[in-house]
Amino acid sequence: MDSLGRRTLVGELVAEFTGTMILILFGVGVVAQVVTSEGGLGDHDSIAWAWGLGVTFGVYAAARISGAHLNPAVSVALATFGDFEWRKVLPYSLAQTAGAFVAALLVRWIYADAIGTVDAGHTIATQGIFSTLPGNGAMDISTSTAFFDQVLGTAILLFLILAVTDARNNAPVAWIAPFIVGLIVVAIGMAWGTNAGYAINPARDFGPRLASFLTGYDTAFEDQRGALYFWVPIVAPLIGGVLGAGFYKVAIGRFLPAEDEPAEEGRIPEQAPREERVAENVAARAEHREPGA
Amino acid sequence: MDSLGRRTLVGELVAEFTGTMILILFGVGVVAQVVTSEGGLGDHDSIAWAWGLGVTFGVYAAARISGAHLNPAVSVALATFGDFEWRKVLPYSLAQTAGAFVAALLVRWIYADAIGTVDAGHTIATQGIFSTLPGNGAMDISTSTAFFDQVLGTAILLFLILAVTDARNNAPVAWIAPFIVGLIVVAIGMAWGTNAGYAINPARDFGPRLASFLTGYDTAFEDQRGALYFWVPIVAPLIGGVLGAGFYKVAIGRFLPAEDEPAEEGRIPEQAPREERVAENVAARAEHREPGA
Amino acid sequence: MDSLGRRTLVGELVAEFTGTMILILFGVGVVAQVVTSEGGLGDHDSIAWAWGLGVTFGVYAAARISGAHLNPAVSVALATFGDFEWRKVLPYSLAQTAGAFVAALLVRWIYADAIGTVDAGHTIATQGIFSTLPGNGAMDISTSTAFFDQVLGTAILLFLILAVTDARNNAPVAWIAPFIVGLIVVAIGMAWGTNAGYAINPARDFGPRLASFLTGYDTAFEDQRGALYFWVPIVAPLIGGVLGAGFYKVAIGRFLPAEDEPAEEGRIPEQAPREERVAENVAARAEHREPGA
Amino acid sequence: MDSLGRRTLVGELVAEFTGTMILILFGVGVVAQVVTSEGGLGDHDSIAWAWGLGVTFGVYAAARISGAHLNPAVSVALATFGDFEWRKVLPYSLAQTAGAFVAALLVRWIYADAIGTVDAGHTIATQGIFSTLPGNGAMDISTSTAFFDQVLGTAILLFLILAVTDARNNAPVAWIAPFIVGLIVVAIGMAWGTNAGYAINPARDFGPRLASFLTGYDTAFEDQRGALYFWVPIVAPLIGGVLGAGFYKVAIGRFLPAEDEPAEEGRIPEQAPREERVAENVAARAEHREPGA
Repeated sequence: MDSLGRRTLVGELVAEFTGTMILILFGVGVVAQVVTSEGGLGDHDSIAWAWGLGVTFGVYAAARISGAHLNPAVSVALATFGDFEWRKVLPYSLAQTAGAFVAALLVRWIYADAIGTVDAGHTIATQGIFSTLPGNGAMDISTSTAFFDQVLGTAILLFLILAVTDARNNAPVAWIAPFIVGLIVVAIGMAWGTNAGYAINPARDFGPRLASFLTGYDTAFEDQRGALYFWVPIVAPLIGGVLGAGFYKVAIGRFLPAEDEPAEEGRIPEQAPREERVAENVAARAEHREPGA
Repeated sequence: MDSLGRRTLVGELVAEFTGTMILILFGVGVVAQVVTSEGGLGDHDSIAWAWGLGVTFGVYAAARISGAHLNPAVSVALATFGDFEWRKVLPYSLAQTAGAFVAALLVRWIYADAIGTVDAGHTIATQGIFSTLPGNGAMDISTSTAFFDQVLGTAILLFLILAVTDARNNAPVAWIAPFIVGLIVVAIGMAWGTNAGYAINPARDFGPRLASFLTGYDTAFEDQRGALYFWVPIVAPLIGGVLGAGFYKVAIGRFLPAEDEPAEEGRIPEQAPREERVAENVAARAEHREPGA
Repeated sequence: MDSLGRRTLVGELVAEFTGTMILILFGVGVVAQVVTSEGGLGDHDSIAWAWGLGVTFGVYAAARISGAHLNPAVSVALATFGDFEWRKVLPYSLAQTAGAFVAALLVRWIYADAIGTVDAGHTIATQGIFSTLPGNGAMDISTSTAFFDQVLGTAILLFLILAVTDARNNAPVAWIAPFIVGLIVVAIGMAWGTNAGYAINPARDFGPRLASFLTGYDTAFEDQRGALYFWVPIVAPLIGGVLGAGFYKVAIGRFLPAEDEPAEEGRIPEQAPREERVAENVAARAEHREPGA
Repeated sequence: MDSLGRRTLVGELVAEFTGTMILILFGVGVVAQVVTSEGGLGDHDSIAWAWGLGVTFGVYAAARISGAHLNPAVSVALATFGDFEWRKVLPYSLAQTAGAFVAALLVRWIYADAIGTVDAGHTIATQGIFSTLPGNGAMDISTSTAFFDQVLGTAILLFLILAVTDARNNAPVAWIAPFIVGLIVVAIGMAWGTNAGYAINPARDFGPRLASFLTGYDTAFEDQRGALYFWVPIVAPLIGGVLGAGFYKVAIGRFLPAEDEPAEEGRIPEQAPREERVAENVAARAEHREPGA
């Protein structure tokens, strides 16, 4: 895309911070609503929908500036296959985690009354509002199952993100893509939320986990069995994302005709589309504006 | 957009009145259905979806003529940043409130039998059909928490409205934008409806509140604790909207390349897009029609 | 749109028959599922969604050929304002009712086992699967309230159908419009289904009512109080549709610039768009195909 | 579409395998979540939505390469009307079934802990996670009713797939079509899931059924009455798909103007659109890119 030097790393990091903050304001917010209202103001389907819509709006906010990864597993997977600069992976990941952390603090603050009424002690009973647990803290799921669940869930996420943003494939135009990407997370929440609460995003899990730890949740880093668990939703998604992206390239990407992207010589395929289509989106708008002028 | 003098303030005010009426016919209507059927004909998710779809259809109806603010918090926030004329803010706000008032009277009339069967005394038990209460009248939420919840909720609303209508960003084309804008309200209802019933719109709350007060709800201006509450969903959203719009400009807007809008010199950035895209939408239609002609 | 004489009245009537059949296969089907599974396989939200999606797919099937009214209230309202030929109103209405009748017979046949297990006597307990009742047969709603509810509900339907198909307004392109139109019915089901089960369509109600009467539901034409009721969901929607369409023209239509449709001189405004946009849709496809050729 | 020999049968089969795998990862996954959480993490609506979204994403992944049938009933119906090569029907069907089989094994593996806690014996109580049963194993539905339910359900599916992909009709553009196609399955799940669990796809049912049989479900091929049942969701959908596709051609297809496809001489009508529109989709992207270049 064109840019008069205004698309700096600072801008990209602010966009990743802001987009992830939007994502978590909805994601952690909806769990807070469902848990504190004890089901009166929503259920697991509300959680699946609001998380997905949170992704949609986080992507709408940041896509043009940073590509809207909003997830270290996305940044690492894209970098692994040369679709994103490694030097940006750590800054992006820190900005994403910071955005999630700040958003979780806002939820913690506004929902303090409500949380206090259902779990004054800030125990594992409401820990799930902020971070994930094996079997959502309720079902007895082994740590290894939770780990492989997160590997698979994040693999599905990255496979589908590439599938719907690869311009050589059947990718939606930029201005509707955030809606479709959000639906991926809606569906993962409905089908893959049992074993480990579908973190599928280290920033989504660690940022809010830290925020809860610093605001009264002393056992935030442990699971319901008292074992350290915080590392699972960090390590497993990073592995799963790479596997899912790799599977996309092996199973779908290599069969797609390259000549559909004449202007793409030497360009980064998966990273490009989203920006490409944003550019085209604005270009299209400019074209369309003419007759109106 | 072009207009042969037909896009007058009268037309704009009628559009704001009508669009907000549509919004409230669905919004207050769905709460009436869920409350009077005691959950048999819907739950909180239905409320979130129907409110959001009400926004979608109110915007479809009014967007072309008035920009479809349908919310004084939107008009004030846009005016604060020079994106809307201050002189129109009061008329717009009054038209919006009047539309909400009339819609609420229609719901009150058609649902009179149903309300009578569950709350013959027209008490706080069904007040929530028309206007918001701290903790939805059920949970013990402090007024200050409700106030800050409304500031934050409306900040999220305005941030996202600008994010999805800024032509320099990844804005959907005009003919699908109302659907995306409606989804913002669906998600806010799912994640930010606990503490104060997500009024996030002074007209949405005061119009129906007044309608209920004039039709038998004597305590319409109070909360479940008997304290005056009606001012919270008016003042807090007006403040939150300005904060959210300002945050968008600081975190996202200033990093977006200006040159993507060559024809926009001296134009109002955020206000423009929706009208721009409507113009382009019709232009696009005209273009496409040619081959068919 | 162009047509080499193939777009005959026969084709239009078959399209209205088929489109309404699709609508009812989903609409009556989902109520049959929810009622016979006693909530195990869905709830009122499923009913709202499946009815709306039934409309979406019925419109996708018939739009190109007949304009996809699928509802006598639509045909009458369009004809009232000169947007549809009066001579076609009766044939369209009969085709719509016949399609609804046949679809209801299919549901009656396939769901016979299931209905038999929950209501062997085919009483008013499962009558609601096929046709509407005041207060859905459960709540005590007066006939007059049900009547006015149907007038208002259908007024909202027609107002919004015109709002989202008026090419001078912010109308979606033809290939996504059926989805948006379906969402209107989803929202009406969530907000206006309490008092009279949102028939808002004489064909939707009478066709299945007749089918149930002929297959064991002896009291199909009565309400839970034993009074003749079948006329309410026929008469009220026809009145409401005209009122809603008229309100659109008074409140929105007259403020929309006419010059946006240079090619529309003397054309029927509201009827045109859908066909126009279908034409443009195919034209656009043809254009786009060229580079691929 | 163009292809430099890269669109080989191997690529097509891998795409069908992968797309069906994605479909089943969501479809069988969501039933596993709802069943093992005993409703705590979803209900029948979640199942309808996640199955539909699974179709959406399976189609997004495979559409460009194989046309994304993901269902032998689709391949057979298209071939029956000359819209797909008979020689490819068996390979496609086997690839689809293999993809469903592998996806079911992944669900079986990751959900092993959860299934073990609710049904250690791997009985018919959790068989429904993997394959369909008459009346979902709960209601007493006759085999013949289940058979005709599957004929009708699959007829609706194929009728609508053709309706929304026929370029002469009101077909969505390629980049949004997978969303609309997914909604067809959402609606079928809500309205036609009572009698036989809406397999409407032999690969969806047999692949996971075999996977469950090989992993501890000894009675996987029987229904709750101990009778062999696995053949019903194979035979009935194949018949229903042909009937539905035929009905589309008789009721809608023959009334659509052929001249809308000048470039389509001698082309396969229903098969073409999806590929056509993908080509046009990429073409459109190329065009749009120019101004940005």
